[in-house]
Amino acid sequence: MAGALPGSGGRRTATIAVIASEAGVSITTVSKVLNGRSDVAPATRARIEACLERHQYQRRYRRQATVSEQIDVVFHEWDSAWTLEIVSGVESVTAGAKIDMVLSQLGGAHRPPQQWLDGVLARRPLGVLFVLSNLTQTQRRQLESRSIPFVVVDTDGAMPPSVPTVGSNNWNGGLIATRHLLELGHRRIAVISGPTDVLCSRARIAGFRSAHDEAGLAVDPGLVRHGNFHVMGGFENGIALLDRPDRPTAIFAGSDMQALGVLRAARQLGIDVPRDLSVVGYDNLSFSGWIGPSLTTVNQPLREMAGTATRMLLDLARGNELTTSRIDLATELIVRESTAPPSPGAC
Amino acid sequence: MAGALPGSGGRRTATIAVIASEAGVSITTVSKVLNGRSDVAPATRARIEACLERHQYQRRYRRQATVSEQIDVVFHEWDSAWTLEIVSGVESVTAGAKIDMVLSQLGGAHRPPQQWLDGVLARRPLGVLFVLSNLTQTQRRQLESRSIPFVVVDTDGAMPPSVPTVGSNNWNGGLIATRHLLELGHRRIAVISGPTDVLCSRARIAGFRSAHDEAGLAVDPGLVRHGNFHVMGGFENGIALLDRPDRPTAIFAGSDMQALGVLRAARQLGIDVPRDLSVVGYDNLSFSGWIGPSLTTVNQPLREMAGTATRMLLDLARGNELTTSRIDLATELIVRESTAPPSPGAC
Repeated sequence: MAGALPGSGGRRTATIAVIASEAGVSITTVSKVLNGRSDVAPATRARIEACLERHQYQRRYRRQATVSEQIDVVFHEWDSAWTLEIVSGVESVTAGAKIDMVLSQLGGAHRPPQQWLDGVLARRPLGVLFVLSNLTQTQRRQLESRSIPFVVVDTDGAMPPSVPTVGSNNWNGGLIATRHLLELGHRRIAVISGPTDVLCSRARIAGFRSAHDEAGLAVDPGLVRHGNFHVMGGFENGIALLDRPDRPTAIFAGSDMQALGVLRAARQLGIDVPRDLSVVGYDNLSFSGWIGPSLTTVNQPLREMAGTATRMLLDLARGNELTTSRIDLATELIVRESTAPPSPGAC
Repeated sequence: MAGALPGSGGRRTATIAVIASEAGVSITTVSKVLNGRSDVAPATRARIEACLERHQYQRRYRRQATVSEQIDVVFHEWDSAWTLEIVSGVESVTAGAKIDMVLSQLGGAHRPPQQWLDGVLARRPLGVLFVLSNLTQTQRRQLESRSIPFVVVDTDGAMPPSVPTVGSNNWNGGLIATRHLLELGHRRIAVISGPTDVLCSRARIAGFRSAHDEAGLAVDPGLVRHGNFHVMGGFENGIALLDRPDRPTAIFAGSDMQALGVLRAARQLGIDVPRDLSVVGYDNLSFSGWIGPSLTTVNQPLREMAGTATRMLLDLARGNELTTSRIDLATELIVRESTAPPSPGAC
């Protein structure tokens, strides 16, 4: 089990006294560093962290009983109802357990600044949930050495397999969305996904390719586009894909927000959805069933993902071993009004 | 200044010893109640709270320096991007001040349960921000006696004028939305607002009436409807208003989510927006500019409201007096595609 306590069962770790002696500082100073206090000179601090790292120091006692138990939930950024689904999923578990939720975001970064981590070390929450964000190896070691467990919701693929992670089956999501469009008769299908360095984007595109392989069709590389998951990314890529003579008859977007941008691009170009263009979203956010046309989309069980991750985190905080450190929940296709067979004259 | 420390300047409050003696308990027991501890018998606790209330007990020392400073943000419920706008507004102030945000929701209730309040008393955050929620008088006194300040974002009208509150000018919002529709030539304008017991709903309907008064027009009581602010409330009221021969030519919805429901109702009945029906929303959530037709709406500066409320809260936490305890930010109309003159043949 990782993410909280390194798995090497009976290993004894150095005491604070050993660390202090080796670093040539007082026990108090080591304690300050362990607790995320800022009143330690940077050089001293670096020396102590290096000793902690070298000894794979592991705080042996668990968190003291305090007046309040909290978990931290850290987003890489807050955008759209997506965020709220995650927050609600966490709360469905914490509310019953009388645990408070401390919320923060990294302004679009995928790794927290050290200052944020110091705050966490000082507060010592029960655990930390990283949403589309994670830690450098050094930061991971810092949490581990203080016995603060963490779980990642989704992943950009940079985490070692031992880090507890909850995701959804992105490859299957890409597969079923594309199969649906192929079964409707579409042959020129575009995909807009997230940034190439995000694993879930790559998995969805792999699913998109697999569906084409199944059908014995080649993928036109010009129809595979990357962007961000925001509405503007969908709009700009939508315009680029649709404002040309050999435009696709269907677009599979990377998120419902992106699909909203594609729908707006189609409207602006006078292209009717679903008559002249089919659009599939991803996430199944609450608005997707209400807009016109309502959106065919891949349901990503965000609440359940967050709830599962929270339960894993509380298990780790109680010192339990996890039976598995990587859980992917199932994705499913929700067919609504935005997809239809291509019109007979379509290119 | 209220909400934190009663305004009666030089008043001396009773000591814990006096409270303990009067309630016939130990100082420790009084201290436990002050700190939200649950290990005090209910009857004893009630007796102590009554003494605290009678003496208008006021904790004299401020919060001890702790490893972490936090504020609590409490929503009556989480729904839609509205919530996220508020959270982002709070974070724009707290992030720079290195203050953590603890998030909770009351599952639709407008008053927190005592158990939640006990948790806050035990944790002693810098302050509490109530969003569309507030406290009973007894609960207010409990926070005040512990010197935990609070600020309300928006209000259901039950708070005394002294409670620090940040809202927006709802009356003006109702006025400018309705004026816009009247100026386009609409004469049968319906309004769907929130529940009647929510003051902001009543203020908007007052603005709706004022615009009619200005224009010398009577309001048809059958066109004034109440519901909740959710998408389903808009859909159901939309169907009820539109599925009749003397249907309105314009609908002013209480929220963008409600407007989304009205648009869906119109689509279901084959009524074209804006040709056969104009729709105005409220809030200006991020999706409202992207859906088709894009939504004419009243911009409610939610982020700024939350930011202002947070700054007020931190001012109170620092022991400063507020220059004003009630701030309403300006609302403005954003005209987009969902409004147009009524079609010539319209009833």
